[in-house]
Amino acid sequence: MNKVSILMGSDSDLPVMKEACEVMDEFGVSYDVNVLSAHRTPKQTTQHLEAAAKSGTQVVIAAAGGAAHLAGVCAAHFNGPVIGVPIESKSLKGMDSLLSTVQMPPGIPVATVGINAAKNAGLLAIKILATNDKALRVKLNRYMESQTKKVLERNKQLKKLGYKKYLAQNEK
Amino acid sequence: MNKVSILMGSDSDLPVMKEACEVMDEFGVSYDVNVLSAHRTPKQTTQHLEAAAKSGTQVVIAAAGGAAHLAGVCAAHFNGPVIGVPIESKSLKGMDSLLSTVQMPPGIPVATVGINAAKNAGLLAIKILATNDKALRVKLNRYMESQTKKVLERNKQLKKLGYKKYLAQNEK
Amino acid sequence: MNKVSILMGSDSDLPVMKEACEVMDEFGVSYDVNVLSAHRTPKQTTQHLEAAAKSGTQVVIAAAGGAAHLAGVCAAHFNGPVIGVPIESKSLKGMDSLLSTVQMPPGIPVATVGINAAKNAGLLAIKILATNDKALRVKLNRYMESQTKKVLERNKQLKKLGYKKYLAQNEK
Amino acid sequence: MNKVSILMGSDSDLPVMKEACEVMDEFGVSYDVNVLSAHRTPKQTTQHLEAAAKSGTQVVIAAAGGAAHLAGVCAAHFNGPVIGVPIESKSLKGMDSLLSTVQMPPGIPVATVGINAAKNAGLLAIKILATNDKALRVKLNRYMESQTKKVLERNKQLKKLGYKKYLAQNEK
Amino acid sequence: MNKVSILMGSDSDLPVMKEACEVMDEFGVSYDVNVLSAHRTPKQTTQHLEAAAKSGTQVVIAAAGGAAHLAGVCAAHFNGPVIGVPIESKSLKGMDSLLSTVQMPPGIPVATVGINAAKNAGLLAIKILATNDKALRVKLNRYMESQTKKVLERNKQLKKLGYKKYLAQNEK
Amino acid sequence: MNKVSILMGSDSDLPVMKEACEVMDEFGVSYDVNVLSAHRTPKQTTQHLEAAAKSGTQVVIAAAGGAAHLAGVCAAHFNGPVIGVPIESKSLKGMDSLLSTVQMPPGIPVATVGINAAKNAGLLAIKILATNDKALRVKLNRYMESQTKKVLERNKQLKKLGYKKYLAQNEK
Amino acid sequence: MNKVSILMGSDSDLPVMKEACEVMDEFGVSYDVNVLSAHRTPKQTTQHLEAAAKSGTQVVIAAAGGAAHLAGVCAAHFNGPVIGVPIESKSLKGMDSLLSTVQMPPGIPVATVGINAAKNAGLLAIKILATNDKALRVKLNRYMESQTKKVLERNKQLKKLGYKKYLAQNEK
Amino acid sequence: MNKVSILMGSDSDLPVMKEACEVMDEFGVSYDVNVLSAHRTPKQTTQHLEAAAKSGTQVVIAAAGGAAHLAGVCAAHFNGPVIGVPIESKSLKGMDSLLSTVQMPPGIPVATVGINAAKNAGLLAIKILATNDKALRVKLNRYMESQTKKVLERNKQLKKLGYKKYLAQNEK
Repeated sequence: MNKVSILMGSDSDLPVMKEACEVMDEFGVSYDVNVLSAHRTPKQTTQHLEAAAKSGTQVVIAAAGGAAHLAGVCAAHFNGPVIGVPIESKSLKGMDSLLSTVQMPPGIPVATVGINAAKNAGLLAIKILATNDKALRVKLNRYMESQTKKVLERNKQLKKLGYKKYLAQNEK
Repeated sequence: MNKVSILMGSDSDLPVMKEACEVMDEFGVSYDVNVLSAHRTPKQTTQHLEAAAKSGTQVVIAAAGGAAHLAGVCAAHFNGPVIGVPIESKSLKGMDSLLSTVQMPPGIPVATVGINAAKNAGLLAIKILATNDKALRVKLNRYMESQTKKVLERNKQLKKLGYKKYLAQNEK
Repeated sequence: MNKVSILMGSDSDLPVMKEACEVMDEFGVSYDVNVLSAHRTPKQTTQHLEAAAKSGTQVVIAAAGGAAHLAGVCAAHFNGPVIGVPIESKSLKGMDSLLSTVQMPPGIPVATVGINAAKNAGLLAIKILATNDKALRVKLNRYMESQTKKVLERNKQLKKLGYKKYLAQNEK
Repeated sequence: MNKVSILMGSDSDLPVMKEACEVMDEFGVSYDVNVLSAHRTPKQTTQHLEAAAKSGTQVVIAAAGGAAHLAGVCAAHFNGPVIGVPIESKSLKGMDSLLSTVQMPPGIPVATVGINAAKNAGLLAIKILATNDKALRVKLNRYMESQTKKVLERNKQLKKLGYKKYLAQNEK
Repeated sequence: MNKVSILMGSDSDLPVMKEACEVMDEFGVSYDVNVLSAHRTPKQTTQHLEAAAKSGTQVVIAAAGGAAHLAGVCAAHFNGPVIGVPIESKSLKGMDSLLSTVQMPPGIPVATVGINAAKNAGLLAIKILATNDKALRVKLNRYMESQTKKVLERNKQLKKLGYKKYLAQNEK
Repeated sequence: MNKVSILMGSDSDLPVMKEACEVMDEFGVSYDVNVLSAHRTPKQTTQHLEAAAKSGTQVVIAAAGGAAHLAGVCAAHFNGPVIGVPIESKSLKGMDSLLSTVQMPPGIPVATVGINAAKNAGLLAIKILATNDKALRVKLNRYMESQTKKVLERNKQLKKLGYKKYLAQNEK
Repeated sequence: MNKVSILMGSDSDLPVMKEACEVMDEFGVSYDVNVLSAHRTPKQTTQHLEAAAKSGTQVVIAAAGGAAHLAGVCAAHFNGPVIGVPIESKSLKGMDSLLSTVQMPPGIPVATVGINAAKNAGLLAIKILATNDKALRVKLNRYMESQTKKVLERNKQLKKLGYKKYLAQNEK
Repeated sequence: MNKVSILMGSDSDLPVMKEACEVMDEFGVSYDVNVLSAHRTPKQTTQHLEAAAKSGTQVVIAAAGGAAHLAGVCAAHFNGPVIGVPIESKSLKGMDSLLSTVQMPPGIPVATVGINAAKNAGLLAIKILATNDKALRVKLNRYMESQTKKVLERNKQLKKLGYKKYLAQNEK
């Protein structure tokens, strides 16, 4: 049993979606990652979702681009929270992916994150799991604090060096 | 067996989609009309499409609004031509419906018509059926000619009355 | 302690957001509902979020329109899942609200639903809570089934009446 | 006589439109391919369409970018199904091409596919021809199955290798 | 012979296009007004344009909505200046009409005015004719001056009354 | 001498712009309000701006819709801060007004507020004047506090009444 | 005296606008080309336009990007036809330039061509001048014919070589 | 005490925002520059703004991309003028940043400049400070004049060299 199941419509989405996997790795959460298409493998997608539900998977992350139907199809077959990642498309830069992921009809929500925001999809899954997992909550708080620290360190650096040296140093 | 199967995601689409039905009625083509949702009734939608394919249905028309996945789901389960009608949505006026209907991935085309263009969806279905039906072709040609005539009659009226009287007369 | 805390930037959002409240009522989930602005009451908003976190609130729903910062501010102060509802704005019809809710920077996800999709925000909160609550899961499944039934009943009606009578009957 | 006639407004569209030709080649369907402009060669375009109709051409595919009028002009002169391919334009990335192809007035449908979706235009033409051609229907089914297989093989690979190795291997 | 020929794709455009006619009437320029469609009456449209060119018509004004091809078709058959008026469309509010009128390919310009800007189309035609007509130039200058005066009078009124009284008075 | 000069391109903008006037009235800041067009009265607009600069006017507020050039023209002739108010336009709902107000070239900034945000334009002018006016700063702080109070009072009401009674009461 | 005056807001527009100059050169029409900004050199721009009007200049072409006010400013100071060229901008790809050029208020038309369509602006100017210049009309007809020929030659080539060889040959 | 405080949500905004710093340097205005995030360091951001207000900082410049909340957060905690710089985002090219910066609710204005327009943000801050600083006003006038001169010099060069040589020379 995996806590999270990550689906993407094409393996061309993997360079983006690996960031969701990395979040799972970092937080030590069990997950599986799948190339399954709403349109090219509808039966296998349904089977996977039904099996995931039975096995106790708690969150689904689905990524697709263009007329991005995968997250919606997941939400039709999996009753738990489904997180949608709109993948940046070539011509319309993900505006098509975003609208076809987020504008779901009443009764079938998809928790949509930003275009290509696979990392945020992963973190959102962690936040959902952490509602019922103290250890995860502790890790999450630490993660958030480390994010804060990074910004503050950069701010300190910028103050110390001034903007010109800071830029010069970071261009190297 | 019906030649054409019309699906819509919600019965709130029917005031638009009746125009596709009217085209079928006008051309004497057998059809069925269904409220079936990609998200709320995924299994029944799949069953309907598989049954339609077996019974010899040749064209599917699918209408949906917002994150409009229905036409794509039809194209995943029905191997014949699928015509998509993006329904005007409340906030984004159908731009979401259009993009999530037309921007399909390679391998799974949806023949998309304009926003709310149910009449054109019906005519496109007729044009597809007419590729193999002389009687239908004759009717289609007559239909096109009558369209032409209507415009020419209006033009004649406008020439005769001048724009002021024409407007006054049509406002009544 | 309330499981869910609903915030909106203005009481003019309430006619939309009441649908989230109704979902909470229907599922018997404890919640509070608040008019708190990211800009006009930043301190009280922060205090509310910190108190909610301490008291054990598990999900925050935040709704705002235009330059909709409320969900982002919630995600900055509350470490659990934050659901964002972009409210339809007057001129840009919620496109501004959607983009300023969903396009969050890495590390600070907001689970965004469609424009004005308060009902879906409520259901998403239920789905999150249900990951750890069997009774809620049972209710959720029943809810989903009743949705399916409604569509199938309408479909049956449409088949029985034909589209003309169905439309005539529903216009009454 | 060719079953399908492919038109494009400029030879700069050919690197995209060759994918439609390749589909014709793959399915063994007779076709002709033409550079004919709605604006620069209106008479020759009309003549070509009228000749195509007389010779028994069954489907027209028309591609154009920007203020893309070619598919509409084809639909005005050819009574069979016309498939429109909006070509990605330089500044507006095909949004102009899409809207000027799909938003046709009542009575003159254009079966529009996605931006630059020449392959899907080809497949849609095959699906239309296959409504009346068993051999083509068999090939089409095989094509769809091979698509499904490709996704499932990639999925198997991904499962076997894990996302890191899969990515490393495909980057080579 | 008429100096200006006004074409519109449908008589539903006339309530907008009458403003172009009124400009012609006001400046005493001969013109004809026609309902002729790029798609429904392509032959008659071409004939009209060729006849107009022969008879000495100097400017064409063409109005259409949605996938607005009429101005482009005019520019393909009439070598003089063609002014395009994008008509506000129902769903997309004329953005489709604008892009399909203005984004013409190199070699075939359409002088596009704003959405529904029929009055400006008329004035642009007058400005073109006035390049070779002193009397018209004089009238045009007077027209421009009267526009200036109107603004200045309103400004004077506003100064005199203050904004509250001015608003109250104009609401009556 | 007036501290603030308010310009609008047409008196049809006054129902929106009166809110800027009301802010001036409320804060007791001297101002003048003018209907002056970038296009119809270019000379008088320039003269007004030069006179305003000489007389000691410190902030200009300029409102226009569509191809909204007025704020840019003000910034070209008046060296102090110019605040631009994009007025909601009929077809494009102010997206045209916003882009033509905010996307100024380097060297000529316009301080742009939201579509129809005349009240915010007024407050921004007050904030600019208050950088050098203690009394105004005090008033401004009080204004901000009263805004905060209003939200908190509504929040209190909502808590007390519950969402149903609150809505019922406010609908009256 | 020059028949046409070309203005651009910045010399960075020249690589685009040279195409308008080339059209002038090709047709042997006298013209001047100017870098003059609506915002940085408002007085010199006005002076240039007034001098141009006096000297008998008949058409103005104005190009600008972003909040593109130059064409509108020209139309405010020059009573003849003004052609606007929206220059592709960095972030918004010319959508801002297009809207701020084309959406002019009633009474002040700008004849707008497509984004970066400097060649079409030049041709439109020629078409305007040709309304009163037989020699130019003859040249224009020849130009149009040569355009037609080019397309037909490419079409012939494509027919002769087939799409594969044609592509291979043109890639060299 | 610094007159101006510049904040950006991420140090990746610095290559753009350095232009605001350069304006401060050029005009000799004291300022500080900070990497502080609305979401990752909400407390430190609030502290910085409150300290800035106390120390006498008069203008805040805030830059962010995507769901750009930083300027709004500044306006919630700092009562003086806040200038917002929408940073160009990867997928949506800053349209998201622009809308989430400019569409602020009534009562909380943000003086928004164009996408990536850091230089204009700097100049706007100078213009605000100059309302109360004669020396700065003099510098500002000189700056504006030097801008005008640059355009006029380029214009002179273009006249002298002709467009071909001018382009050739500038390409070097």
